[in-house]
Amino acid sequence: MSELEQPAVFDARLSAADLRDAWRLLDIAERAEGFRLLDPTAGEEFFSELSTSDQLTLFSALSPAEQRFWMRALAPDDCADLLQEAPQEKRAELLALLDETARREVRTLLAYAEDDAGGLMSTRYARVRPDMSVDEAILYLRKQATARLETIYYGYVLDQEQRLLGVVSLRQLFQAKGHALVRDVMHTDLVQVPEEMDQEAVGRMFAQHDLVALPVTDATGRMKGIVTVDDIVDVVQEEATEDIQKIGGSEALDAPYLEVSPLQMVKKRAGWLAILFLGEMFTAPVVQSFEHEMKRASVLTFLMPLIISGGGNAGSQASTLVIRAMALGEARLADWARVLRRELLAGSLLGLILGLFGMLRIIAMESIFPTEEVGKHAVLLGAVIGASVVGVVLWGTITGAMLPMILRRFGYDPASASAPLVATLVDITGLFIYFSLATTLLAGTLL
Amino acid sequence: MSELEQPAVFDARLSAADLRDAWRLLDIAERAEGFRLLDPTAGEEFFSELSTSDQLTLFSALSPAEQRFWMRALAPDDCADLLQEAPQEKRAELLALLDETARREVRTLLAYAEDDAGGLMSTRYARVRPDMSVDEAILYLRKQATARLETIYYGYVLDQEQRLLGVVSLRQLFQAKGHALVRDVMHTDLVQVPEEMDQEAVGRMFAQHDLVALPVTDATGRMKGIVTVDDIVDVVQEEATEDIQKIGGSEALDAPYLEVSPLQMVKKRAGWLAILFLGEMFTAPVVQSFEHEMKRASVLTFLMPLIISGGGNAGSQASTLVIRAMALGEARLADWARVLRRELLAGSLLGLILGLFGMLRIIAMESIFPTEEVGKHAVLLGAVIGASVVGVVLWGTITGAMLPMILRRFGYDPASASAPLVATLVDITGLFIYFSLATTLLAGTLL
Repeated sequence: MSELEQPAVFDARLSAADLRDAWRLLDIAERAEGFRLLDPTAGEEFFSELSTSDQLTLFSALSPAEQRFWMRALAPDDCADLLQEAPQEKRAELLALLDETARREVRTLLAYAEDDAGGLMSTRYARVRPDMSVDEAILYLRKQATARLETIYYGYVLDQEQRLLGVVSLRQLFQAKGHALVRDVMHTDLVQVPEEMDQEAVGRMFAQHDLVALPVTDATGRMKGIVTVDDIVDVVQEEATEDIQKIGGSEALDAPYLEVSPLQMVKKRAGWLAILFLGEMFTAPVVQSFEHEMKRASVLTFLMPLIISGGGNAGSQASTLVIRAMALGEARLADWARVLRRELLAGSLLGLILGLFGMLRIIAMESIFPTEEVGKHAVLLGAVIGASVVGVVLWGTITGAMLPMILRRFGYDPASASAPLVATLVDITGLFIYFSLATTLLAGTLL
Repeated sequence: MSELEQPAVFDARLSAADLRDAWRLLDIAERAEGFRLLDPTAGEEFFSELSTSDQLTLFSALSPAEQRFWMRALAPDDCADLLQEAPQEKRAELLALLDETARREVRTLLAYAEDDAGGLMSTRYARVRPDMSVDEAILYLRKQATARLETIYYGYVLDQEQRLLGVVSLRQLFQAKGHALVRDVMHTDLVQVPEEMDQEAVGRMFAQHDLVALPVTDATGRMKGIVTVDDIVDVVQEEATEDIQKIGGSEALDAPYLEVSPLQMVKKRAGWLAILFLGEMFTAPVVQSFEHEMKRASVLTFLMPLIISGGGNAGSQASTLVIRAMALGEARLADWARVLRRELLAGSLLGLILGLFGMLRIIAMESIFPTEEVGKHAVLLGAVIGASVVGVVLWGTITGAMLPMILRRFGYDPASASAPLVATLVDITGLFIYFSLATTLLAGTLL
């Protein structure tokens, strides 16, 4: 029979893909209806590919018998994720749908923080004994093919106390002589993930080592589970999303943009905006304290937004670069002096470039459209503006680069040094730098 | 022999880990020296885990014979990455180190854009025939264990014309009856990656489907290679890094932060800063055009940074959220009207919240520290400031949310709608909104 003559498979296949495409447009009842139309295999795959929040919404539209069926179809780690996402009062009810063994496994996983390696791992890995022969190990893994293991391509070699001795891949076993012992074939140069390691750090380990699965162990070397790379893609994606949203000056949305309710959306965004707005109120008294100077040389007022935005932009840039370097482990807290040196240099050069533009702008405008106010002081004013820009940009760069490190030092998330926060901080101090320089250098001429 | 009595293995293991830890602190010659001390297996693993730029630096310190050895040890896709990173004049020299077959493979891969699925794939996958029995297929994959294939855990089922018919995992084969045919066991509901697909989209496919490897096919369905999930972790990481750096208002660094030379660093950052600075110069004439009003009511000047930063912050926030939603495929260009509606609502609410703060600030300050200028018009001024904040925040939010979509519409990267760019755009227009509202509403009272 050719591939084209399989109407049943073809239909089911089509509707799974169709359902996936239409998903976002369907309401909850329609989703449940479409889901029921899938054949069991397609349904299982479809369900496991849904996001946890989608799974939960779908659940609410299913009958108790269906809920029970799908809870039992989920791997323990996915089950734990679902429960973590569920409202507190719903958890016990969902846990009760599982059989005794699964419930115990899920409870163990729930004890870990969601963002820990432990919260990410699967407990369904294949164990082999060090004194098995290669042939025995292959046969054993082969028998596990039907078991609900995360992978049968890696056998973890444990001693009596569940301590991890080594790992052997099916591929290594295939290459070895059949009568050799697993202990002589296994890989002992192990990359291990401590159970309490943050998932962002786990992501970095995978990015560095190009591995498919990593064993999770506790402080005494006991094997607790495995983390597989397919889960890590989601983690890396999510962690970057959180950082990006924080860098933009909002809280992490924790859900797809279009699925966050409008009220929730405002809640996630209003907090930081309000704090920044209150902080920015300090600019008013600063500007006011230079009222006298601005009245005498109103050109200082016109240039105010230009000067302070230069500092804000340089600061946003620096903080974003340092936040990302820290998230990738490229720059650690201990590197602060190196970062500071680099940013001092970069900030000075960037300041000089922008300062030159600023100076030329003043001189050029004044020669094309001469004003009574500036008049013959154009070059002096240009120099003052240039110097202010250098100062503000350098200051913005240093503030932006150091703030994420200071936050990390005190246990906060470096990504909270958002572009808007840095811009706000630099606005206040930048106004000081600008007006102080201007008042000092222009005294006796323009002022 | 117990695990503790293997001094040779233990030593080599120690030095590989040591070298990894010390890597960043060593100069090029020291790196090469340390690298030579690794035993061959550890060396191969160590080398393959290095970043492409690190591999290239290390290469420059190795002898021609060593270069030849390590070039031949690399998989074709890693070879192609290395060549892509190498300076133009060095490429032919490096290509010449390969044997004829590998050179042909690498040349094929080099023909793809670096960011395409084709540039990411490996051509070393296992092919099985549809009319093989399950036992034959297992035996065949087992024999491939020593071959330099990317994975032996998946067999790709091709017809005579190299068209992809299906895929069968070793696990599926293990579960099937030995005499069954591959064509009856294989998975035909295939998720395929078109060879020209952008790697960011490939990353999304992996995040959605939780698969270990995906086949890459051309427009006629011919199999070209496979992309494996371990490479995707790097891709997802890199794409997020690029977006974050762009959102911060610089070009993508394309290298670890601490390894970018200071000059290169300034080059990547000065471009956007200069453009933004030049753009921000348009604020000066806008402010100047309201000189008269500011002279009459200097409180308008004091509040200028507060008002425009509110719009800039709201805009940075909106653009960042929309950029990320687009990168994740959560919001597509076709969703623009939905996004606009959501942001109109969010922007109005956020504007009202901040506007209320602004209004209260004016009224409170004026009752605690009454001024001659504002005097009995405090409530009116408060209302005007409140209204300005609503207008500026709403406008900033809409600009920030729509700019990434407009950029995508015209073929640019949405991430170029950086926080500083949006803040700059909103500064200019925000000043207009603020002063226009103030002049209209305060005419006859404060003005």
